[in-house]
Formats: sequence, structure tokens, C-alpha cells
Amino acid sequence: MVMSMKYPSGVKEQKKNITFDHRGMSLESDLNETNQYYLKEEKAVIYKKPTPITIVKVDYPSRLEAVIREAYFKTPSTTDYNGVYRGKYIDFEAKETKLNIFPLKNIHPHQIKHLEKVINHGGIGFIIVRFSKLERYFLLPAENLLAFLKENTRKSIPLSYFERNGFEIKLQYRPRLDYLPIIDRIYFKGDV
Amino acid sequence: MVMSMKYPSGVKEQKKNITFDHRGMSLESDLNETNQYYLKEEKAVIYKKPTPITIVKVDYPSRLEAVIREAYFKTPSTTDYNGVYRGKYIDFEAKETKLNIFPLKNIHPHQIKHLEKVINHGGIGFIIVRFSKLERYFLLPAENLLAFLKENTRKSIPLSYFERNGFEIKLQYRPRLDYLPIIDRIYFKGDV
Repeated sequence: MVMSMKYPSGVKEQKKNITFDHRGMSLESDLNETNQYYLKEEKAVIYKKPTPITIVKVDYPSRLEAVIREAYFKTPSTTDYNGVYRGKYIDFEAKETKLNIFPLKNIHPHQIKHLEKVINHGGIGFIIVRFSKLERYFLLPAENLLAFLKENTRKSIPLSYFERNGFEIKLQYRPRLDYLPIIDRIYFKGDV
Repeated sequence: MVMSMKYPSGVKEQKKNITFDHRGMSLESDLNETNQYYLKEEKAVIYKKPTPITIVKVDYPSRLEAVIREAYFKTPSTTDYNGVYRGKYIDFEAKETKLNIFPLKNIHPHQIKHLEKVINHGGIGFIIVRFSKLERYFLLPAENLLAFLKENTRKSIPLSYFERNGFEIKLQYRPRLDYLPIIDRIYFKGDV
């Protein structure tokens, strides 16, 4: 199933005169700010998962303090962000690229498998990609990511695929990357 | 709202002759084994989150290897386990105690707040407690945990509260802590 929607006219109108204090912040900080906003405004409970590591050695310089002295990064088995929105399970991965295409090596095969499992279990799964040179952000539903992989042997997804099968998120003042209205329009059609 | 259910007669019958290979494993390993089983059997997608840490110093002894040389444990803002089951968001914390009561200092106040937010957003939230001396396991819905905290000023929850307002999980061979049937009976009543 390929997800699509028509933008209601007028909805994408942007406030042009806002000053961005932190233009060029990382995608991760923009999403963390957005998720904190959603939490505070009681719109959703969505967090970034901690970085998975294997701890080898811990020192205790004092009775109350523990210092990790040797640890290694692990390959993540899941995506970075998950939580609950309107009762539904939300799960996504966020990636940045400096290129004007999205190289598929940026996303681990088991993260793609994980997103496939999420949607098979009735959850909402997607990726958010920042094309940093263009300063454009897209939400691509997992359904459409999987459709691309099924129909193509290319090692990257062209920008045009995001333009046609994804949903652009305009960077704004607060929250910086307001992706929930897109989720409403794709997954909660007519149910406001 | 206090969650309750009647066990259908016969449902709690246990297979008594099974040999437990790893009796006394930690609650965490029992839950990880259970969640891996659910994943493999395509029943649910539920993971333990990585331990949250703050990384201060990373060495790169070779081009391909990164070694974390200084990092600190952070207080978790959320619970340890979350995922998707039958389209719904699942979120829980797992705790062990050697006592025959559950000391409330075992669970962080912001974890309790987090569970409250989860249920307010339509997710399913609970705690799983292992009373290790008794080798008894209980699932206590977040609704009932919050009801206890609202009605009591005690610093611990007595076992009898778990017996009356929780749901006992019997340790078994595979999966070791089969908690999803309880979720079915509490949250998906009559909807099989």
C-alpha cells in the first residue's frame, strides 16, 4: 500500500518572517525539541532511545559515583524514536544527508526490517530525512520506503521519490519540525 | 479506573513437569527471552531500551573502532520496555525486590509520571514486579499503581495489593514470562 494524501489548500502556508535562532542545528536536536514540545503540550509521548552500548568496565571512584571506563557502540536493532500518539504506536528513524539523494547505506537493513514489523503489527512507522544542503525535510511512510526497495535495485532514493511519495516538513519556529499534522492526515483521515 | 478481570476457569492451569533450565535468571533476562520469543513468533515487537548514559570521552584506537573511555549513567526519564502489540502502544517498567513488599523507592517518580502520560495518551502501561524470595511475578496495570499512590501515603506496596489488583504471571518454560495473555484479557476484552 502506498500512502498518499492531498494537501488541503492553504495548509502549507508558512510564516515567512520568523527568525530562526538555531538555523542549522542538527536533525536530532530539532526532533528532540519537537518531541519535548509535544510532551509539554500533551500531544504525544515520543522519545529518542539512548545510544545502545556494551559496557565492559565501570569504576567507582566514590560510593555514589560510577564512571564507565570502557564501552563500545553497538549496532542498533531498532530505530531511534518511538512512543505513543492518539493511542497508536509511533516508530521512526531520522537521517541526514549532504547529498541530493538518500543513500540506502545510511539506514541499517535491520532497521528497515524493524519498520516492516512495526507496520505489520499495526503501528505507524516512517523515516524523516533531512537533505542538509537543500534544508529540506521529508517524512516518508515505511510503506513507501518498502515499496521503493521492492521495486528498485538502486543504492539510493532520489529526491524526486521523496517529493512524490513523501511529505515535506517545513522547518519552523516552534515546534521546529511539526510532523504530527502529517501523521493525522495520513493515518487518522477524517478522524479529528 | 481500577483494572480487574476474572480468570476464566482452567486458564491458570500450569504445566507442572517442565524442567527450568535457568531457574533464578534475572527478571531482565527472562523478559528479554520472552520479548525475543514474541518477536520471532510475530506476536509483538517489544524491546528493552538501552541504558541511558552521558558520553564524555571517546578514543579511536583505530580507524574503525571507537572506545568510550568516560561516560556516566543518567537517571532514566522513561521506563525500560516499550513497543507495539495489536496496534497499541505498550510501555512498562520491570523491578525486582527481595522483600515481601514492593518499596516505592525502587521506581523513579518520573517513571510513574511517564506511565501516567502513556495511559492518558491511550497507550497500555504497567509494571512487572518479581518478588525474588517468593519466586512470584505480578503485572500491575499503571491505573492500579496510580490508584494506590493516590489513596496511600505508604512507602511500599504490600504483596496483598498485587494479589488483589495485579495479575500473577507464572514462570514457565517458553516464553518464560508470558504476559501478553494478561494484556489480552485486560485491554482487549472479548476481542479475539
